[in-house]
Amino acid sequence: MNHFFEQWLPPLEAEMRTVLAGREPATAAHYGMIHYHMGWVDADFRPVTLSAGKRLRPLLCLMACQEVGGDPAQALPAAAALEILHNFSLVHDDIEDGDAQRRHRPTVWAIWGVPQAINAGDAMFALAFAALQRLSLHRVPSQTVLSALQLFTETCVALTEGQHLDISFERRDCVSVEEYMRMIQGKTAALIGASVAIGGLVGGAQPSVDASLRRFGQLIGLAFQIQDDILGVWGDPMVTGKAAGADILRRKKSLPLLHALNHPVHGDAFRALLARPELTADDLSEAMDLLARTASYEYATQRMHALYAAGLEALREALADRAESSLLWSTAQWLMQRQM
Amino acid sequence: MNHFFEQWLPPLEAEMRTVLAGREPATAAHYGMIHYHMGWVDADFRPVTLSAGKRLRPLLCLMACQEVGGDPAQALPAAAALEILHNFSLVHDDIEDGDAQRRHRPTVWAIWGVPQAINAGDAMFALAFAALQRLSLHRVPSQTVLSALQLFTETCVALTEGQHLDISFERRDCVSVEEYMRMIQGKTAALIGASVAIGGLVGGAQPSVDASLRRFGQLIGLAFQIQDDILGVWGDPMVTGKAAGADILRRKKSLPLLHALNHPVHGDAFRALLARPELTADDLSEAMDLLARTASYEYATQRMHALYAAGLEALREALADRAESSLLWSTAQWLMQRQM
Repeated sequence: MNHFFEQWLPPLEAEMRTVLAGREPATAAHYGMIHYHMGWVDADFRPVTLSAGKRLRPLLCLMACQEVGGDPAQALPAAAALEILHNFSLVHDDIEDGDAQRRHRPTVWAIWGVPQAINAGDAMFALAFAALQRLSLHRVPSQTVLSALQLFTETCVALTEGQHLDISFERRDCVSVEEYMRMIQGKTAALIGASVAIGGLVGGAQPSVDASLRRFGQLIGLAFQIQDDILGVWGDPMVTGKAAGADILRRKKSLPLLHALNHPVHGDAFRALLARPELTADDLSEAMDLLARTASYEYATQRMHALYAAGLEALREALADRAESSLLWSTAQWLMQRQM
Repeated sequence: MNHFFEQWLPPLEAEMRTVLAGREPATAAHYGMIHYHMGWVDADFRPVTLSAGKRLRPLLCLMACQEVGGDPAQALPAAAALEILHNFSLVHDDIEDGDAQRRHRPTVWAIWGVPQAINAGDAMFALAFAALQRLSLHRVPSQTVLSALQLFTETCVALTEGQHLDISFERRDCVSVEEYMRMIQGKTAALIGASVAIGGLVGGAQPSVDASLRRFGQLIGLAFQIQDDILGVWGDPMVTGKAAGADILRRKKSLPLLHALNHPVHGDAFRALLARPELTADDLSEAMDLLARTASYEYATQRMHALYAAGLEALREALADRAESSLLWSTAQWLMQRQM
């Protein structure tokens, strides 16, 4: 798996840099903001070397292409498109959530203001489509490019539906676990599912195989999000880089918190606690105590494991006896063990 | 021309309603905001009948398709995509400009807040691509659909470049007329050019003909924007629905104002005037006086006419002796005479 990462990360980065390259001096700052968000330059547009994000989505795309017998090089434009789309959504999410920091740096809107940040995100959205259309330059048949575009577009719509639900949950007292699952299906799982499915499509997978690959991606996407939620409450601050109990302090309606809020015995107490105007260290330890009494950690962990297991089952349907020795399998195993 | 409008507006609206239809009760409000912006429902999502916008871009697309010998019905998905894209850009522009009103109604962000409005705009952006991909359902060849998608994507990027310049101009003391022309090329002309070119493409135009059609669209797009600028200063408030001298009060860096700001004799006086903290009625009449002394009306009008004339010349290159009797010609003539 590490070998695959080392082999494909450099051409992936090169493909993204080609698509996101500036065009003329007049709009240099427009592309500069995009390069800043991608971690390639600082706020004065000078080149920097930062550790990039996980690049999870594009790597899943390239792996899926290889596992069904295709050449990952042919799928590079799709991989770039998926990562650019993911980053577009982060730029707009940061505005919508009012987050002034991401990966220990000020966010785009915090430096250049909301109007330019909305617009830079829009450019990344458009450039994600431009990236995907470059599949035609890699001798991918027109019909396959159109199928990939359709799946990609559906995923963009699903992302906005998930984000709509996430924003609307903030204003509500109570959200059910089912509503929460619907939200993360749009906000996280749809794109991870599409990443695997588009890789399979470019690699020439049969429709039924590709449908199973997509389900694999969606299921591990759901698990991945719940794992984020668990780390947001119980993660080690030394490892995650976030404050202890960060998501409690933000009153984020993540799965463990929703489980406690919906608890028949302790739900009211937990709701009253989160409604306090400013949360102190004492409030935080009281919250952790209520989460323990509602067994929210066990509940979320069990759901996460069930989803990973169902994902691996879908992968077995897709790849049959090659599943367990595949890169997708080991990537899912690796994700299950992550601590950040 | 009126006959063409009456014939094609209903199927165009139907196509847009199909693409923008809601999917499930959980996200009804997400699609409701989109329908509100399109003028189909009120803020409580109850159906209303409002006069729609000009629908200029989709009608130019359908006309171009017909003029090169195609069937406009085949181009309906492209026409819908162009109008949805235009409306996406309005939703985000309203946030970026802080405009709380559009067509005498509160804007999306003014009702549902900035986060949901950014996200509703993103959904429209994605759905514009979904609309365009429906060309495949109308028996348009895959290669033509991909060419249309490429032109459409380039146009989306150009829109964000124009918007980037427009936002950055606000913070600057001085902007040259050349910089302004570059800005409206991206913000207005690129999409009108693409509307005509995509219609021609679907209708089966030869590449050289389609290039001339695109240039026709871009040139009348530039003229159209300058005309907007003229109406924003000298338009009849009874007809435009805007205050007299609206763009002066907003200190908008439109062409007539830039001409005065860059004037060798009166530029400094005009700049000093626009820098006053609150503009009174006396300031407004002083500004109108300076605009008269710098002959800014004549300058802008002359540029507008030259661009319309160059546009008609490009149309002659595209359609030869059929140009003058074409719907595109009469639409350009009709646009030249508009008062709002």
